[in-house]
Amino acid sequence: MDYDRVLPRLVRKSDTRILFLVLDGLGGLPHPESGLTEMETANTPNLDALARRSSCGLHDPVLPGITPGSGPGHLGIFGYDPTRIEVGRGVLAACGIGFPLEPGDVAARINFCTLDERGIVTDRRAGRIPTEQNRTLTRILESIDLGDVRLFVRAVKEHRAVLVLRGEGLDAALEDTDPQRTGVPPLQARARQPEAEKTAALVNRFVERAREALGAHAPANGILLRGFDSPAGIPSFGERYGLRAAAIAAYPMYRGLARLVGMDVIETGETLEAEVESLEKVRGDFDFFFVHYKPTDSRGEDGDFLAKARALEALDLQLPRMLNLGFEVVVVTGDHSTPSSLRSHSWHPVPFLLHSPWCVAGVTLAFSERAVRSGMEGRIPARALIPLALAHARRLEKYGA
Amino acid sequence: MDYDRVLPRLVRKSDTRILFLVLDGLGGLPHPESGLTEMETANTPNLDALARRSSCGLHDPVLPGITPGSGPGHLGIFGYDPTRIEVGRGVLAACGIGFPLEPGDVAARINFCTLDERGIVTDRRAGRIPTEQNRTLTRILESIDLGDVRLFVRAVKEHRAVLVLRGEGLDAALEDTDPQRTGVPPLQARARQPEAEKTAALVNRFVERAREALGAHAPANGILLRGFDSPAGIPSFGERYGLRAAAIAAYPMYRGLARLVGMDVIETGETLEAEVESLEKVRGDFDFFFVHYKPTDSRGEDGDFLAKARALEALDLQLPRMLNLGFEVVVVTGDHSTPSSLRSHSWHPVPFLLHSPWCVAGVTLAFSERAVRSGMEGRIPARALIPLALAHARRLEKYGA
Repeated sequence: MDYDRVLPRLVRKSDTRILFLVLDGLGGLPHPESGLTEMETANTPNLDALARRSSCGLHDPVLPGITPGSGPGHLGIFGYDPTRIEVGRGVLAACGIGFPLEPGDVAARINFCTLDERGIVTDRRAGRIPTEQNRTLTRILESIDLGDVRLFVRAVKEHRAVLVLRGEGLDAALEDTDPQRTGVPPLQARARQPEAEKTAALVNRFVERAREALGAHAPANGILLRGFDSPAGIPSFGERYGLRAAAIAAYPMYRGLARLVGMDVIETGETLEAEVESLEKVRGDFDFFFVHYKPTDSRGEDGDFLAKARALEALDLQLPRMLNLGFEVVVVTGDHSTPSSLRSHSWHPVPFLLHSPWCVAGVTLAFSERAVRSGMEGRIPARALIPLALAHARRLEKYGA
Repeated sequence: MDYDRVLPRLVRKSDTRILFLVLDGLGGLPHPESGLTEMETANTPNLDALARRSSCGLHDPVLPGITPGSGPGHLGIFGYDPTRIEVGRGVLAACGIGFPLEPGDVAARINFCTLDERGIVTDRRAGRIPTEQNRTLTRILESIDLGDVRLFVRAVKEHRAVLVLRGEGLDAALEDTDPQRTGVPPLQARARQPEAEKTAALVNRFVERAREALGAHAPANGILLRGFDSPAGIPSFGERYGLRAAAIAAYPMYRGLARLVGMDVIETGETLEAEVESLEKVRGDFDFFFVHYKPTDSRGEDGDFLAKARALEALDLQLPRMLNLGFEVVVVTGDHSTPSSLRSHSWHPVPFLLHSPWCVAGVTLAFSERAVRSGMEGRIPARALIPLALAHARRLEKYGA
């Protein structure tokens, strides 16, 4: 599947508009008692009605069997090959707070954590401290002096922050210091290759100073670093597809990912209602609207089956308002599945619907894993979604004579 | 579809076990009278019940429309790309009798055949002579002197044997001498490239001497050679997937194929019962169990529709004994289809079921070509089967942040 060889020659302009609605972690698994999935349990009349007027199927964000992180999942549905383009959590998080990364920067995600008197991690999220406290602490950390290397420490939300190092000869090939469990001390930042030794030493010095500076700030008296990464050159989504693309996402990470592929990130609030209002505001200014909805994934990761179903219902209530804005093409899908029984992302293929005037519709009667499986689109790689949306938006020329 | 770029980083250890049951030549075609396939005709309550608790679909061993030989078929379901890794019948057959091939060896499959007084092939299988007679004849052939080049001739079964040449400068790029039909003389071994000229001459000398030596042994008074091949370096299945893999196969060729990809070949007998006993014995010592069942393919190749259905029923009877051993993941599939109406392997996609605690089950109500076509898995390349099995066995990490 190599679209790169044909798409650039086929893309054409049009005044059609595409709504690309991503319900994070959409797919699920049957509840042991009812035998129904979250999607089958939720009462979603608007999604179901849209599915009946759509062409439906399942997509694999990366490859069958591969569980995607948020980065590969979104790259896949945006039409990139996540096995060739990789985005680490550090870069994502930095983009998500609007931090202007430069080539050569090394970014990492910070979690404030709680350490006991022996330096053992007792809470990997420092009791999810308030964001306000996070801002105080990051100002303290940013004042640490690392000599020639500049240091940026920025708050994200609750216990999460971002570290960016800027200077000569930095290398992001470092192992995480987050041990991913409690009861052990944080790990040392280890270089994966000799070129990264200098950066590893700097990071370890930073972590040591941070611990001194945070000593009095329990429960946030330590930090864990992960996802060391430098920004990679990703071909612009807009240029690739001939689209003016807007991103509306309440969560920083998804704004960051959208910015990384060159979408215009629209200011919005922290709720779905705020997202819909933002969509209403910019409806006339763009061709493509990536709207990201996080709660489906969050509730799945919580392992809360019913809350995930409720999150779907909340989205369903807002759907008519979005559809009323008028889009020639509407895609509703997820970046991966997050079954509440697994409490994590999973490898299961992700349901999608694609509505346009050019569908063989009436095949799929509801929007669920089982209902879409025998839809007109079958099972396809996620990378085919945007080309399909472009085709339905009459934005692709015929290939060949 | 390039798993090689992601899988090596994702494989993790677990104590889960995977049963990978291969019903050779599984898929078939409808009988002209009943309109039902062999799978639909066979009474297989245990397979049907398992399918109902599984995620089902169809796979293409190589590519849609390509009829695979046993080598490419098995490479495909083992997760390799059969268009990039090729295994000839000679190498397979040599491995199947436990012959320790060395790099640079040239192996070929021998069929004893019947020649008339003009040297015309009248029976390509020499009346399927008893294996005992085969052993006598191969000892005669092995005493042929080819000078510097060492010669090994080993009996397989009935009319089948293996030739291995060992020496300097050998090259396996030779055409078969088997004309694939009766009524014509055997072909000369022709070199496909200049480097193989010496080997072609050696082989033709060997065939000539063999005919002299076998003159008095009609119906086995000639030999046909095919599948000239040298062993290629195939990445080890166990290392690739982080599995201790056992192969249980009554037929030499499948033991050979399993050995070639680095599985541990378990001693077993010639019946399915013997295979199940072997499985019971080694159940605690491995993570992955490739169990191969040949009769479905054999009866399909015989063109015996009902016998193929009976072969499925015989397998079905043994299934509970296998399942009772306890596997977190069970895959049942074939390496290709063998419709009895075609009396040969075919290009049709192959049914599969995948059972684990993480399935959206209840979709497919029986195990047959038609029943699995609208299963949750859709139609996938065979190479996705092992990654899917690993995912369901919780043996793959999440990819990316």
